[in-house]
Amino acid sequence: MKTLAQIGEFGLINRIDQKFCTDKNSGNIGIGDDCAVIQETENTAKLITTDLLIENIHFIKNKVTPKELGYKSLAVNLSDIAAMGGTPEYVFISVGFPAGTTVEWVENLYSGINNLAQQYNVRIMGGDTTRSPENVTINIMIVGHINKENIKYRSSAKMGDIICLTGPVGDSRAGLKVLKNDYEQDELNRKLIKKHYTPPVNISEGKFLAGFKEVHAMIDVSDGIDSDISHIMEESGLGASINLDHIPVSNEFEKFIDKYQHGKMELIFGGEDYELLFTIQSEFFETLKSYYEEQFEKQIYKIGEMKSKKSGLNFLENGEKIDMQKKGFDHFSSNRS
Amino acid sequence: MKTLAQIGEFGLINRIDQKFCTDKNSGNIGIGDDCAVIQETENTAKLITTDLLIENIHFIKNKVTPKELGYKSLAVNLSDIAAMGGTPEYVFISVGFPAGTTVEWVENLYSGINNLAQQYNVRIMGGDTTRSPENVTINIMIVGHINKENIKYRSSAKMGDIICLTGPVGDSRAGLKVLKNDYEQDELNRKLIKKHYTPPVNISEGKFLAGFKEVHAMIDVSDGIDSDISHIMEESGLGASINLDHIPVSNEFEKFIDKYQHGKMELIFGGEDYELLFTIQSEFFETLKSYYEEQFEKQIYKIGEMKSKKSGLNFLENGEKIDMQKKGFDHFSSNRS
Repeated sequence: MKTLAQIGEFGLINRIDQKFCTDKNSGNIGIGDDCAVIQETENTAKLITTDLLIENIHFIKNKVTPKELGYKSLAVNLSDIAAMGGTPEYVFISVGFPAGTTVEWVENLYSGINNLAQQYNVRIMGGDTTRSPENVTINIMIVGHINKENIKYRSSAKMGDIICLTGPVGDSRAGLKVLKNDYEQDELNRKLIKKHYTPPVNISEGKFLAGFKEVHAMIDVSDGIDSDISHIMEESGLGASINLDHIPVSNEFEKFIDKYQHGKMELIFGGEDYELLFTIQSEFFETLKSYYEEQFEKQIYKIGEMKSKKSGLNFLENGEKIDMQKKGFDHFSSNRS
Repeated sequence: MKTLAQIGEFGLINRIDQKFCTDKNSGNIGIGDDCAVIQETENTAKLITTDLLIENIHFIKNKVTPKELGYKSLAVNLSDIAAMGGTPEYVFISVGFPAGTTVEWVENLYSGINNLAQQYNVRIMGGDTTRSPENVTINIMIVGHINKENIKYRSSAKMGDIICLTGPVGDSRAGLKVLKNDYEQDELNRKLIKKHYTPPVNISEGKFLAGFKEVHAMIDVSDGIDSDISHIMEESGLGASINLDHIPVSNEFEKFIDKYQHGKMELIFGGEDYELLFTIQSEFFETLKSYYEEQFEKQIYKIGEMKSKKSGLNFLENGEKIDMQKKGFDHFSSNRS
């Protein structure tokens, strides 16, 4: 009898998908993208996404304030709506608390969720509360909406598309290193921790990008660029090349690497950055880039290109292919620290 | 600083509702009924409900098969849809597993969910899977639909309504006693355990009842009749009287009580029976009763009457008021065994 540690999270999801999710021809999409898509009217659909966060797996209770934890719990789900190009509407919150949890802690958790929800006009509609024997357990579910023609699927990338990012990556993982290694919380390190706990939520950016038919596929960088581009490759039946030296990082990140000598690639591919990764018809890149900069007063970054399936996933540095083991984050089998 | 154990689950829900759920005038309903109601078209609404089940709080892993656990996890949510009169459509499943969990166990859990889902044409649309440090954690969320005019709210009961039940109660709690006390699993006790793990799902019954405008308020018996009628009383601004000797119980239940001498009332009010409790305009009771019996070849049971708010909740035996402490199930503060 195999254990989950042996087949890994993606192995499990594939088995469940094949055995139990048989609704392939309904126009609805279940497993296999950032959100499930449920047909609503002729032109609109509902987007639904859900994430389960458990103490000591996804967070350490005494290293995060309840407000930060509330923010992040909602942010990771909002990011899935952003990655399809949608507008979030309603949130449902299920929480399991050990009996000794204080009311103040719980109210601060909800307050963190509520503050972010209000920024995006998302309404808290209910959920469930219960006891938990040991670990605080949080399940957030968001319902959003979208015009069907704007939905950006992982499966829509085309050969020759340019691969773009909406912002720098690596800060979140660096922040986690600060926490796990108990590094001094100076100004630099506090900024990185902040990126770990209160990552950007790109709802407006996602909606903007979804308005262009030349933007083909989109995903949020939750697992790590390598793992997330692999999802697009798999769903679109393509390969990709990523220019490592084009991946944007922050000044804080550069300073952190210099100071602590952590492996740059490990942190860049560490995930939980929640920037959007999307593919775009190459001829349209410069036009979109200028539209985007005008709208948001920030850049988009060109980091690679979609290739044929047989070429697989390649990483380039100074234009030369380099050998790098694929290191996707797998919740069950990998050992992240 | 108060702890959750001090304010209890309903205390917590009230505080959260008042502080963070401000969408009172939108026509949408969040906290305060079996499901959230989200307006869809002029005539239709979506119903959404979610439940979080955690090992060692809601189930003991070595006392339930994964198929039974899957069935029950889905059933408790389907029951919330039934209690509003709706039709379930989609299910989202988030599960946290300790790393040593076998693939076989997980697949049997999903299989238990899937078998029941297929009976009601409910489609598994995705969710989340993750590691859990110690306890299997299951969050199920169902999306359903309903014609707005058919929705049965807790708040719609009227003074003088007859209070009805769709089936016997107490078996589920008796089954739990068998499990917790390690009673011999003879034929009688196995039947009671079966009612605990695979309780009835009254989707068809709920939809049928929802078709009658004379049926006013509805709820499922998840917390226990006393607690669930209290929800209707509170939301409707009324009181109620319950005839203890009219509450239906099964033959197995009677035999169990005789054999093991457990307190009958404790078990009857133990909850998790998932029968529907509804209130109906008194003049229409006999008509509905005959329609219902013709449709389902089973009975509905008249167990009490809605009264004025000032009379509160009263229990009668042989027509005489009896003194009985209100003993609603509270997930945080009560000590159920």
